[in-house]
Amino acid sequence: MAMDGYRGFLGLLVAALLVGFLSVIFTLIWVLHYREGLGWDGRALEFNWHPVLAVTGFVFIQGIAIIVYRLPWTWKCSKLLMKFIHAGLNTIAAILAIISLVAVFDYHNASNIPNMYSLHSWVGMTAVILYILQLVLGFFIFLLPLAPLSLRALVMPIHVYSGLFLFGTVIATVLMGVTEKLLFTLRKDTVPYSAFPPEGVFTNTLGLLILLFGALIFWIVTRPQWKRPKEPNSTLLQPNRGTPEGVEGSMAINFGNMDKSDSELNNEAAARKRNITLDEAGQRSTV
Amino acid sequence: MAMDGYRGFLGLLVAALLVGFLSVIFTLIWVLHYREGLGWDGRALEFNWHPVLAVTGFVFIQGIAIIVYRLPWTWKCSKLLMKFIHAGLNTIAAILAIISLVAVFDYHNASNIPNMYSLHSWVGMTAVILYILQLVLGFFIFLLPLAPLSLRALVMPIHVYSGLFLFGTVIATVLMGVTEKLLFTLRKDTVPYSAFPPEGVFTNTLGLLILLFGALIFWIVTRPQWKRPKEPNSTLLQPNRGTPEGVEGSMAINFGNMDKSDSELNNEAAARKRNITLDEAGQRSTV
Repeated sequence: MAMDGYRGFLGLLVAALLVGFLSVIFTLIWVLHYREGLGWDGRALEFNWHPVLAVTGFVFIQGIAIIVYRLPWTWKCSKLLMKFIHAGLNTIAAILAIISLVAVFDYHNASNIPNMYSLHSWVGMTAVILYILQLVLGFFIFLLPLAPLSLRALVMPIHVYSGLFLFGTVIATVLMGVTEKLLFTLRKDTVPYSAFPPEGVFTNTLGLLILLFGALIFWIVTRPQWKRPKEPNSTLLQPNRGTPEGVEGSMAINFGNMDKSDSELNNEAAARKRNITLDEAGQRSTV
Repeated sequence: MAMDGYRGFLGLLVAALLVGFLSVIFTLIWVLHYREGLGWDGRALEFNWHPVLAVTGFVFIQGIAIIVYRLPWTWKCSKLLMKFIHAGLNTIAAILAIISLVAVFDYHNASNIPNMYSLHSWVGMTAVILYILQLVLGFFIFLLPLAPLSLRALVMPIHVYSGLFLFGTVIATVLMGVTEKLLFTLRKDTVPYSAFPPEGVFTNTLGLLILLFGALIFWIVTRPQWKRPKEPNSTLLQPNRGTPEGVEGSMAINFGNMDKSDSELNNEAAARKRNITLDEAGQRSTV
C-alpha cells in the first residue's frame, strides 16, 4: 500500500532504530566497561540490570510498540494482528520494566539503602503502575471483543494520549536515573563527575541518544500522513454484521493516531449504531 | 464563539493554572524556606534564582504560551494579535531562562565549580539554544509578513512539533535539576535524601506538580475540538487581496494545532496560489 513521503518515513525509521539500538549498546558498555558488569548477586552486578532493562524494554521496545501501526509493510495485515503485536511488545516492555524494579529493590535491600525516596523513584514507579494499568485497560477495551464501540471511541483518545505521555515520562525518568547514578558513583574519592571523566561524558551522550530516540518516535507517530489507513469499506457495507471483526474493521482504531478527533470517533460510533453506511470512512482523513 | 466541551476545557484550564501556579509557589518555598533564599551575590543566593526562573519562565509561562490560542475568549481577537501574545510570552520565557543560566554560571564561576559537565546542563543548554532558534524562526516566518505561504505551510508542523518537544524536554531537564540539587545538598553531613527529610519529600512533590502541569498542557493542546477555529471566509472570498492580513486570516495557523496535516496546509497554500475560493476552509476540520 502506498504511503505519502515513504522515503522520509524510511529514513526516520532507520534513524530511530539506529539511535534506539545505540542507546541499548551504550547502556551495556556503561555497565560492562565502566561499571561492575552484570549478575544477579543482590549487589552492584544486580543493580546494573536496572538501567539495561529500563533502556531496552521501557524505552526501546516501548518506542517500537508506539510506531508499529505506522510500518507500511504491515498495512496489509489485519488490524487485530497488529493489535496483538502492539500489545505484545508493550507486555514485553512492562515485564522488563518490572524485572528492572526487582533488580533495584533487591540491591537496595541487600545494601540497606532505603527504597522510594528519590524523585526518580517516585516518577518511575508511577510510570510503571500507570503503564500496567494502560496495558490491562487496552487489553480489555480494544483487544477483547467485549467493549461496545462507544466505549472504545471514548477511551481511544485517552489511550493514545496516555501512551505518548507515559513514553515521555519514562524518558524523563531515565534521564533522572542517569543523573542520580553518575552523582552517586563519580564522587570525589574517584574522578568526580565535574572533572569530565570518560564515564561521565559517555553516559551524558547516552542520555542525549535516548532523548533523540524519543524525538524521532514522537515525530514519526504525530505525522498524519503516515498513519495506518482505515480498513477497506467491505465490512462497512454490511453494517448489520455486528461481529467483533466488523467492529475491528470499521473502527480503524489507530493507537498512534494523533489527529483523529473525539468527535470524529463519536460520530462514527453513532453512525454505526444507526446502521448508516459510512461512505467516507474508507478514506484517509488527511487526504 | 461556542466551543465543544467548554466546561471540560474550563476545568482543565483552571487545573493547569492552579498546578502551574503551585509549582512556582513550591519552588519559592523551596529556596526561601529550605534553602538560603534569593539574592545576587554570586553564591548560593544567586544560584537559587536558577530554579525559580526556570520553573516560572521556562515551565509555567511557556506552558501558557503553548495553549494561548485555545482560550475561547480570544477567538474574537485577530490571529495577528494572538501571534504577538504567543511570541511575547515565549520571549518572556526565553529571557527568564537566559537569566536563570546567568545565575548558575555566576555561582559556578564564583565557587570554582566547573560548568556544563552534567547531563542536566547538556540537555538544558541544548533546550535553551533550540528554544531561542525556534523563537527567531517563528518571528521571521510567522509574525513578519515576509515568508511565502508555502514556506509557512512547510514549517508549521515542524514549529508545532518542536514547541511541544522542547516543552517536554524542559520539564525533563527541570526534573534532572531537582534530582541534582537534592543529591548535592541532602548529603550525609545533614539529613541525607535517603532518610526522607521534609525538604526531599517537599521537592519531590514539586517535581510531580511540574510533571502534572506538563500532562495538563499536553492534553489541552492535543484536543482537536478545542483548537482555535479558522478565520471567517471574508478574506478567503477575496483571494486576490494578497495582503499579509489576508494571508494571516486564511492560513488559520494554529501553533497548538496537532491535527492539521502537512498535506492539508499544502493544499490550502496551493489552492490560494491558484486563487481558488476555499469554501470549506471556514469550517473546522474536526466537525
